[in-house]
Amino acid sequence: MSGITDVAGVRVGHVTLNHDDGPHAVRTGVTAIVPGEEMFRRKMAAGAHVINGFGKMAGLAQVAELGRLETPILLTNTLSVWQAGDGLVQHMLRGDPAIGSVNPVVGECNDGHLNDIQGLHVRPEHALAALDVAAGGSVEEGPVGAGTGMVCYGWKGGIGTASRSWASTALGGGQVTLGALVLANFGRRGDLVVRGCPVGRLLAEAPPAPTSGEGGSVIVLLATDAPLTSRQLTRVARRAAAGLARTGSVYHHGSGDFALAFSTARAYPPFLADEGELLNPFFVAAADVVEESVLRALRAGRDMVGRDGHRVEALPWARVEAMLKAAGLPLL
Amino acid sequence: MSGITDVAGVRVGHVTLNHDDGPHAVRTGVTAIVPGEEMFRRKMAAGAHVINGFGKMAGLAQVAELGRLETPILLTNTLSVWQAGDGLVQHMLRGDPAIGSVNPVVGECNDGHLNDIQGLHVRPEHALAALDVAAGGSVEEGPVGAGTGMVCYGWKGGIGTASRSWASTALGGGQVTLGALVLANFGRRGDLVVRGCPVGRLLAEAPPAPTSGEGGSVIVLLATDAPLTSRQLTRVARRAAAGLARTGSVYHHGSGDFALAFSTARAYPPFLADEGELLNPFFVAAADVVEESVLRALRAGRDMVGRDGHRVEALPWARVEAMLKAAGLPLL
Amino acid sequence: MSGITDVAGVRVGHVTLNHDDGPHAVRTGVTAIVPGEEMFRRKMAAGAHVINGFGKMAGLAQVAELGRLETPILLTNTLSVWQAGDGLVQHMLRGDPAIGSVNPVVGECNDGHLNDIQGLHVRPEHALAALDVAAGGSVEEGPVGAGTGMVCYGWKGGIGTASRSWASTALGGGQVTLGALVLANFGRRGDLVVRGCPVGRLLAEAPPAPTSGEGGSVIVLLATDAPLTSRQLTRVARRAAAGLARTGSVYHHGSGDFALAFSTARAYPPFLADEGELLNPFFVAAADVVEESVLRALRAGRDMVGRDGHRVEALPWARVEAMLKAAGLPLL
Amino acid sequence: MSGITDVAGVRVGHVTLNHDDGPHAVRTGVTAIVPGEEMFRRKMAAGAHVINGFGKMAGLAQVAELGRLETPILLTNTLSVWQAGDGLVQHMLRGDPAIGSVNPVVGECNDGHLNDIQGLHVRPEHALAALDVAAGGSVEEGPVGAGTGMVCYGWKGGIGTASRSWASTALGGGQVTLGALVLANFGRRGDLVVRGCPVGRLLAEAPPAPTSGEGGSVIVLLATDAPLTSRQLTRVARRAAAGLARTGSVYHHGSGDFALAFSTARAYPPFLADEGELLNPFFVAAADVVEESVLRALRAGRDMVGRDGHRVEALPWARVEAMLKAAGLPLL
Repeated sequence: MSGITDVAGVRVGHVTLNHDDGPHAVRTGVTAIVPGEEMFRRKMAAGAHVINGFGKMAGLAQVAELGRLETPILLTNTLSVWQAGDGLVQHMLRGDPAIGSVNPVVGECNDGHLNDIQGLHVRPEHALAALDVAAGGSVEEGPVGAGTGMVCYGWKGGIGTASRSWASTALGGGQVTLGALVLANFGRRGDLVVRGCPVGRLLAEAPPAPTSGEGGSVIVLLATDAPLTSRQLTRVARRAAAGLARTGSVYHHGSGDFALAFSTARAYPPFLADEGELLNPFFVAAADVVEESVLRALRAGRDMVGRDGHRVEALPWARVEAMLKAAGLPLL
Repeated sequence: MSGITDVAGVRVGHVTLNHDDGPHAVRTGVTAIVPGEEMFRRKMAAGAHVINGFGKMAGLAQVAELGRLETPILLTNTLSVWQAGDGLVQHMLRGDPAIGSVNPVVGECNDGHLNDIQGLHVRPEHALAALDVAAGGSVEEGPVGAGTGMVCYGWKGGIGTASRSWASTALGGGQVTLGALVLANFGRRGDLVVRGCPVGRLLAEAPPAPTSGEGGSVIVLLATDAPLTSRQLTRVARRAAAGLARTGSVYHHGSGDFALAFSTARAYPPFLADEGELLNPFFVAAADVVEESVLRALRAGRDMVGRDGHRVEALPWARVEAMLKAAGLPLL
Repeated sequence: MSGITDVAGVRVGHVTLNHDDGPHAVRTGVTAIVPGEEMFRRKMAAGAHVINGFGKMAGLAQVAELGRLETPILLTNTLSVWQAGDGLVQHMLRGDPAIGSVNPVVGECNDGHLNDIQGLHVRPEHALAALDVAAGGSVEEGPVGAGTGMVCYGWKGGIGTASRSWASTALGGGQVTLGALVLANFGRRGDLVVRGCPVGRLLAEAPPAPTSGEGGSVIVLLATDAPLTSRQLTRVARRAAAGLARTGSVYHHGSGDFALAFSTARAYPPFLADEGELLNPFFVAAADVVEESVLRALRAGRDMVGRDGHRVEALPWARVEAMLKAAGLPLL
Repeated sequence: MSGITDVAGVRVGHVTLNHDDGPHAVRTGVTAIVPGEEMFRRKMAAGAHVINGFGKMAGLAQVAELGRLETPILLTNTLSVWQAGDGLVQHMLRGDPAIGSVNPVVGECNDGHLNDIQGLHVRPEHALAALDVAAGGSVEEGPVGAGTGMVCYGWKGGIGTASRSWASTALGGGQVTLGALVLANFGRRGDLVVRGCPVGRLLAEAPPAPTSGEGGSVIVLLATDAPLTSRQLTRVARRAAAGLARTGSVYHHGSGDFALAFSTARAYPPFLADEGELLNPFFVAAADVVEESVLRALRAGRDMVGRDGHRVEALPWARVEAMLKAAGLPLL
């Protein structure tokens, strides 16, 4: 399993900015998720859900109105949405110079605990580069791309991804895949739950990392190759809330928690398909892949020293595994 | 702790209809939640959130528009919303004969697995009676009132309630309370999680109870004495999704999952209060009391035989407690 | 042109309750709109828009979630939603006794100025009768069915209907129809505009009819035979706001203004159809048929004396036509 | 009357880019609306409404979640949202270098018919300059700032503004003001209605200007000094739809029509104020000032030749006035 790229045609690219120390330490980047080719001319069905709208994710109003995604999706830090969006506009104009109006989708989290966010280090060319290097296959996770400076449950956060495949009886038995990619930058130390184990409380002796609860956020992207309508994709996106809650989130006030789902199928399901038979497997899978993506982002963490000497440690995964084993709870 | 009635002035009343056997077995009822006195003339701030709108909860459009609750809230079975609503209209007219327009709020779940739902056994007088007997203090839980015939995670469900109190620094240190009451009728047997313990999987040998996943639903009511705006109450209501997810829910397609929060304070908080400082404790508490209310509804279950001999057993709570103890997980 | 019944398969039925005088004068009724046959088993795509949610229209949450209409639609007075809904449940159970959950859609306006609304004179059997007599072809307009006691812009209001047909280039040139039916009970005397002519101001000498602005409302139903998605139908429904505004409405605080659109096609449009080419004709037509339906409801008005001797006059249509002619403005 | 600046403390600034001819003719700019001082530290209540979400207005999700505006508002062209947003971030950081997360609000319309929009001529420094020159008092209207290259109903569009003041009985008789500012770039030639007069049809001989219907849009900003909640401001914002409809709009598919209302009062109204008494005057005024702002934008039009020699003429206002006079309809 590679994650969201298990949905055929989906590509992911990272540009990581990790240099300097002290007050201007740069720990940020851009991650590009490319759903497929010719996005502007052959738009894909999409739906979004705002779990907690303390955030600046761009492009959602048009996705809600038209039910369509017409660009790749970029992720970056909170104050760099604008540079990334400008890069995405330039990217679209290169592909089709006649475009007069285009709806870039850009998600963000606040990496200001480790990153000199006010330095505005992300530039449009970083967005363009992330789009250029986007590839299928294995996805690098953890502190990479937009995830470079992120903090999750007080541990090193960042990018995580996961997927599930199954045979859809409602779609005639064909194999379908649902993939997730998250930019994980949320949660309070004590709240972390791994597969039911209250890891956060059990690791309570660890030093707290202050910013993630308040300035934190999480962006969830969900991709499927199944033909779902924008309304159905919106319903799938809403199940991200269940996956996040399983890891301990209550969607804090200051956390910009957004989920967006798209379908690469560019087609409708059968009109009279039983929607329960069709969607319940997606709902179950959506909660699962979101939960797993967050855990994988944590598992891929590495200790990092950033701005002003702020230090964030990786979640001690071996200890987590030992705890789960002791409790008889399932491993990742 | 009594539950939602720990919020001063909130009263709860049940009318239970439990008689006959065979195809016309009646296992249903009405539960009335009375937020306070003079509801029509002195409306309360309220906000609602639709987690999954496969349901018929009445009155939400006006609550969303006006941010106000002007009647008590009734809970009953899916096909009896109309009889209950009629009773609530009559109740309001008795209190104020000049009312020309009133917005009854009525929530529902489908108890058709145990109850002869098509028999339409709930009548307006049952609604009136539930309103009449509503009282503060201890709340009866489990298969009572609207909860009589409900099924939750394949076990006997029904009414559950819980509350939390704390000193609110954002409100000058005053004590505030958040209470929940749920009508729990959702979830698939294998999915149940209790305090992190995958009880559903561990009790997999038990016979499945088929209806709750598809025809199920859950109504969540949240009450507080703190002065919150309707917008803030809506945000509190949204955290019900986290509480439900902790018990194993992914909000199945066929589950009508609604949450409504109201404030008995009839006042605004300070305009420039820090909303994070004010609301995060409510968000944490909302997830907690919703989770706990569902578990209490299950704990209060009793074996029941209903329509056509359909049998639903109570969750074997002693076994659950043993599992939690073995896993080192916290008890209820 | 017959109105909404110009959409093939759509039927309309009225039951009018018009008897007695004095404090208990009954001036109310039920109107049933039947979109087609076998509604529960073969649901239709639908979308709704809340223009101003001071109202109690039932069933909208599920329509929004599932994008489907599964029952006929009933219209009645504000306090009788519950009796009508109960009748609609009974109607559905007659058609399919195994139904355990069904989502009745019931719209309402407040006819309490002319009708003894607190008398709760509408009974489930009136709903059943309206469904039984529903027929295609010519639709009776004005003070009939649910429109019996309604007041619009201070004049006698009620039921109005209109339709437009055109060849849809986006659908391969096939003929499509959009029909509207309104229950018109809104607006202040001085605000009425007919085809651009400020009729309300010009007829300012007339005695005001006090209730419609505050306690008024309007329900707009839109039907089409074109294959539109629920998202697209929601967009069409939103254009009802433009049609109402043309007649002078600003959607007063106390007016419950709801619009619901459905498609009888039970099919999707081509996935990559140009949505502008497809929908703009629907948007233009929606504003037109809603405006025209309101004007037709007024044109069909007849003087009525109701509760406590309250008198509402019909809009003097001949004078309106003379005004339009003088101003060089188009007639109805 | 000056328009939106009649609300005390509100300032408006334009930067106009109007140079060159041929394929790279620049006809664009930035308009800044500054609601008051210290926006980040003392946020204002705000609410927004998406009339038709074919647009890229930034910042709405957070306004909806938090009900607060924390920055000035910028208007510019569709592809320059990102440059303007970047400028607004820089502006906020200058005011408070510790800001780690801020929610810029940027509205846009497509001026690509007259402007070399793909040239991306707006830069962050233009945004900064517009903020710097923002002032109270008289507001320049028509083809200025963000309005420079806009087209409305096929005539020269751009910026328009208007206001109303009245004594609010619900607020104890105090004087309140509601102001609007629109960026008008929408509508089809034949649809224009001025005060009820079908000007569009009567001027049908004029050459059509093709882009505004499809690529057009309108941004409506509403400001008041009255203490309204974010929920109430959202309701006020929704009445923009009525004002636009009066000028002939049906909110075409390709038109990004957004409305945002804010209150400079930084306070709540009385909790138990009669909301009808409080808000109906705002609803009436909102429709009025939006209608008037659009007409004033048209009245202030001047003939312009732009990109590739595209020519757009000013609406012949003297002829419009003559038409209104002939029809006995009220003048602006």
